[in-house]
Amino acid sequence: MSKTKKKGKQTVQFAKPPVIISAAGVAGPKEGEGPLRQYFDTIVQESMWGEESWEKAESKFMEQAVRTALDKANLSPGQIEYIFGGDLLNQCVGTNYGLRSLEIPFIGVYGACSTMALSMSMAAMCIDGGYADTCAAVTSSHFCSAERQFRFPLEYGGQRPPSAQWTATGSGCVVLSSGGDGPVIDCITTGKIMDKGITDANNMGAAMAPAAADTFIRHFQDTGRDPAYYDLIVTGDLGKIGKSIVIDMLSESGYDMTKNYNDCGLMLFDCDTQDVHSGGSGCACSALTFCGYLYQLLHSKKLNRILFTATGALMSTTMVQQGESIPGIAHAVSILNV
Amino acid sequence: MSKTKKKGKQTVQFAKPPVIISAAGVAGPKEGEGPLRQYFDTIVQESMWGEESWEKAESKFMEQAVRTALDKANLSPGQIEYIFGGDLLNQCVGTNYGLRSLEIPFIGVYGACSTMALSMSMAAMCIDGGYADTCAAVTSSHFCSAERQFRFPLEYGGQRPPSAQWTATGSGCVVLSSGGDGPVIDCITTGKIMDKGITDANNMGAAMAPAAADTFIRHFQDTGRDPAYYDLIVTGDLGKIGKSIVIDMLSESGYDMTKNYNDCGLMLFDCDTQDVHSGGSGCACSALTFCGYLYQLLHSKKLNRILFTATGALMSTTMVQQGESIPGIAHAVSILNV
Repeated sequence: MSKTKKKGKQTVQFAKPPVIISAAGVAGPKEGEGPLRQYFDTIVQESMWGEESWEKAESKFMEQAVRTALDKANLSPGQIEYIFGGDLLNQCVGTNYGLRSLEIPFIGVYGACSTMALSMSMAAMCIDGGYADTCAAVTSSHFCSAERQFRFPLEYGGQRPPSAQWTATGSGCVVLSSGGDGPVIDCITTGKIMDKGITDANNMGAAMAPAAADTFIRHFQDTGRDPAYYDLIVTGDLGKIGKSIVIDMLSESGYDMTKNYNDCGLMLFDCDTQDVHSGGSGCACSALTFCGYLYQLLHSKKLNRILFTATGALMSTTMVQQGESIPGIAHAVSILNV
Repeated sequence: MSKTKKKGKQTVQFAKPPVIISAAGVAGPKEGEGPLRQYFDTIVQESMWGEESWEKAESKFMEQAVRTALDKANLSPGQIEYIFGGDLLNQCVGTNYGLRSLEIPFIGVYGACSTMALSMSMAAMCIDGGYADTCAAVTSSHFCSAERQFRFPLEYGGQRPPSAQWTATGSGCVVLSSGGDGPVIDCITTGKIMDKGITDANNMGAAMAPAAADTFIRHFQDTGRDPAYYDLIVTGDLGKIGKSIVIDMLSESGYDMTKNYNDCGLMLFDCDTQDVHSGGSGCACSALTFCGYLYQLLHSKKLNRILFTATGALMSTTMVQQGESIPGIAHAVSILNV
């Protein structure tokens, strides 16, 4: 049996924390004009990227992110023992088609926009558990494929309310290893499905915020840490509204999140100038922010302790049209320089 | 570090094989008229099951399967450390809504119709790895919700070609534990995405067969076993056409699958009298066959060694409409009485 210690109900502390040996972010044009533009490996100037459809373009972003992360780690696809990935498209086709040429044993995950943290969590378990030495974790999203699937045809030019968010275009991939140089995944806190009755698909931040708050509180209780333990705490894509709800909910439980907490949706874009309303969203929002920006800050020791908490809204258009509320989930990954 | 031995490239042999301490199958009306009707915990007489939509009914099947499996193990939801699950609906809403009331830390997986084997594989890793003592794995499908999502409105009454299969209605759930009585998951073989260029969404068996064959060959190579090691080898939902392709492909590699191999799609329904054409399909096809029938045969020692290999087609309607071929995947779970 593993010497891994499980701390508390939802948190696993790894005995031999897996190392993030490389990370790559491939960003779309709007992301490439945002505040994090200098941190991406590739900025694609045209959303379709020479493909015949937005869905095929999304798969290309993912394949490129994986191949770039592998190149940076001097690894070939055949050296990756498992790849964990998923995305927002129906039946996760961004991932299924994006990874099909790689011939890596594949574990599909679905956590909506929490997928980057979910896939990293599973890959870390797989390595610490002794099942593999080298795994990859990946996700993607694409504004155009998401918009037409979840909302309206782009040609319709629908008005977006101030609470709406902007689905990021791009893909992020990390390579995890049982050894090597880089920050480590020291523990993970796996979330529960939370549904507080929000039914407005243009207010996802509010739908997901209770799940993020629940995972944070559980993480702090399980580990005995408080928010000040971390240099930076991020959520995935709660945006302005969801972020303020999280701060309020944590305050009610006695945790001060006002000092070192931000949301990737407010970091990836400049909300004042880039017309993204309440902020960025989508699987790629947290993936690009982590695999581009945060990983480099960790690597250069500008930050040494991050709690990366990606958040997902688990509805579909069908369920929203049937009047159902929107369940949320949040998975937290603690990443440290040790 | 775990003492788990990894055997070969895609197979994990567990050092302390997780025990399947309970299983439950909740079946729809057509499944309840089929050859396995005596093995289900519940047979629901009406597809809508008192809900307002087929999607909500599918979620109810899943919730009922989980609650039944927990009852049979004398466990409450709060005693399950992680639940692994997914389904075929867009954004896996059968699972997201079906599990939302249970408040169990949730790891969403997507493997299309391979989901039962995928969720069992991940739950087994989680227990053997020392991260949990008790986990559940679940999946569902529903003929009506799948038909309207993937093919045509039911009211249209479209003709089905002979190669078409019939999506099973129901849900299956297993509870895995680090100890207790029952058959064990002794090893798992995780599949790769395989795409041989099949573009006919009414011939899924042919699309998935190469993935099943690849996983079988890898399993036999990794473990040193041959087909005769098992009392029974099953695939998930290849149907008549896919099954014959697998037998041919394995024969070309020197493995005789003619003696002890069957497909859950040919076991769940009577293809001669139930108008299912090439056989059953859907996540629930393999889930009901395993959680109902096969688990009871294992428990009563009528069978002692099963290779349960669920198969998934990883396309979406969008990708098929764009002319893309259908990638497949297959995950194998070896289940033994020891």
